[in-house]
Amino acid sequence: MTPEQARELFRAGTRAPTSGFSAGWTQANLIALPRDFAYDFLLFAQRNPKSCPVLEVTEPGETSAPRFAGDLRTDLPAYRVYRDGELVEERTDVADLWREDLVAFLIGCSFTFEAALLEAGVGVRHIETGGNVPMYRTNARCRPAGRLAGPQVVSMRPVPAEQVATAVRVTSRYPAVHGAPVHVGAPEALGIADLGAPDFGEPVEVRPGEVPVFWACGVTPQAAVMHSRPPFAIGHAPGHMAITDARDSEFLVP
Amino acid sequence: MTPEQARELFRAGTRAPTSGFSAGWTQANLIALPRDFAYDFLLFAQRNPKSCPVLEVTEPGETSAPRFAGDLRTDLPAYRVYRDGELVEERTDVADLWREDLVAFLIGCSFTFEAALLEAGVGVRHIETGGNVPMYRTNARCRPAGRLAGPQVVSMRPVPAEQVATAVRVTSRYPAVHGAPVHVGAPEALGIADLGAPDFGEPVEVRPGEVPVFWACGVTPQAAVMHSRPPFAIGHAPGHMAITDARDSEFLVP
Repeated sequence: MTPEQARELFRAGTRAPTSGFSAGWTQANLIALPRDFAYDFLLFAQRNPKSCPVLEVTEPGETSAPRFAGDLRTDLPAYRVYRDGELVEERTDVADLWREDLVAFLIGCSFTFEAALLEAGVGVRHIETGGNVPMYRTNARCRPAGRLAGPQVVSMRPVPAEQVATAVRVTSRYPAVHGAPVHVGAPEALGIADLGAPDFGEPVEVRPGEVPVFWACGVTPQAAVMHSRPPFAIGHAPGHMAITDARDSEFLVP
Repeated sequence: MTPEQARELFRAGTRAPTSGFSAGWTQANLIALPRDFAYDFLLFAQRNPKSCPVLEVTEPGETSAPRFAGDLRTDLPAYRVYRDGELVEERTDVADLWREDLVAFLIGCSFTFEAALLEAGVGVRHIETGGNVPMYRTNARCRPAGRLAGPQVVSMRPVPAEQVATAVRVTSRYPAVHGAPVHVGAPEALGIADLGAPDFGEPVEVRPGEVPVFWACGVTPQAAVMHSRPPFAIGHAPGHMAITDARDSEFLVP
C-alpha cells in the first residue's frame, strides 16, 4: 500500500495501529502545539533528540509538509486532543479543531526500523500478533526546555537474548528514528513495575529466553504535554502514526 | 591542551584558528541572535541539518551551556559582529556587546572529524600548513525558515583521488558535525569560480592528483545573517571556534 492509499483509508475512517503498513515508507509521530509553544517544543526536541527526532515542522496553520503530502487533520488513523494537559478526546478526525496558530511537528518513529529488524531475522512480536507496540512512561526525565518538561516514554520489544546485539546493531543505524535502544533488560530500573500494563499500546508476551528491549519513543512529547499542561495540543493516538512520503532508507546511516 | 586551558589562552587575547587545538575535544561554531529570532533560527537549523547541526542552545542572556563551561563572550579567539546583516566589527572579546535577549547556538564543526581523517591516513592540508581552512559561499540555497534564508557555505579539503572514498567513509560516521561531504570535485557546479579566493579562511594548494572535497560548514548561519539582515548578531570569526567540553567520540556513529 502506498502512503497515499494508506492515508486515504484512514481519511475514510479506518482505525488501526500502523505498524507494518506501507513497508519502506517512514511513519511519524504527531504533536501540534500553539505557535506560542513552538520554540519551547523545538528546543525540547533538540535537547532530547533520542526521544524527539524532528522530521518536519509546518508553518502555523498549515496541514501538510514537504514530506507529508496528505492532510494532517484527517489522514492519521486516530488522534488525541489535550486541553490544559488533560486528554479530553480520542477521535479519527480533527479537522474542526485545527487552528490557525497550530504548528505541527512530525517526529521519527521506531516502526521505521522494524523492517530492518525483520530482515536481520529479529522477530517483532506486536507485528506477529497484529497488535500495537507496548509503550511505558519511565522514571527517566527529559531535559526541560522553556515551559516543557516530562518523563521519557519508551517502546518495548522482546528480543531473544542471543539476538540482542543484532537488534542494537541494526537499530543504531537509524539514529533519526530513535536509533539504538536506551535500555536493555531490567525494566524496574526504568520504574516500570509491570510489563503487562503498558501506559500506551498493548502488552505483548515476553517469552523465556527473551529480554525486554526499550527504545526511545515519540509519544514522549505527549507525556510532556500531560506534565506541562499547555492550553491546547493535538497528538496522534499512540501507535496510530502519520505515514509520510519519506523512505526509510533516507534515515539509514552507513 | 585541555578545553579549559585553550579557552583561558583565548580569553587572555591569543588569536589563532583553532584547527588542531585540544585534539579529541569538540569544536563548535557560534551564532548568537536576539530571542525574537531564536525560533526562526532553530527551525532553519532543523531544515538544514547538514549545515547547522545544533549542539547546544543557551537560555536568553546566558553565556555558558552544559557542554561549554567557559564564557561565550570572551573564550573564543575571535568574533564577528553584525548589525542589520552588515559585518561591522571583528574582535577578540564581545563582553560589552552581549545582551540579555541573546540566544547563543553552538553548532557542530568539521574540525571534529579531522583527527579521524588523519588517523585514517588522509592528510589535512590546512593543518599541515598551520593555516585556516578555506570556506566558500555556494550557489546552493538553504531551505528558508521564517525570516532566515541564505546560501550554503562549504569548507574544502584537497584529498588524493585514491583516498576520496576513505574520506567519505570516515566523515560519514560523524553526522552531527556535518558528516559526509556534500560535494566531491567540480567546484564550478557549486558556483565557486576560483578555489584560490575563498570567501572565508585561507586558500590551500590543490596538488595534481588531488580532488577538492566539500563539506557543509557552520559558517552557513553567518551567511544567512548577511542575507536576511536581523538587527543584531554575533558569530565566531570563521575558523576561530568555541572549544567545548564535549568529546569528539560522542558524535561518532557505529
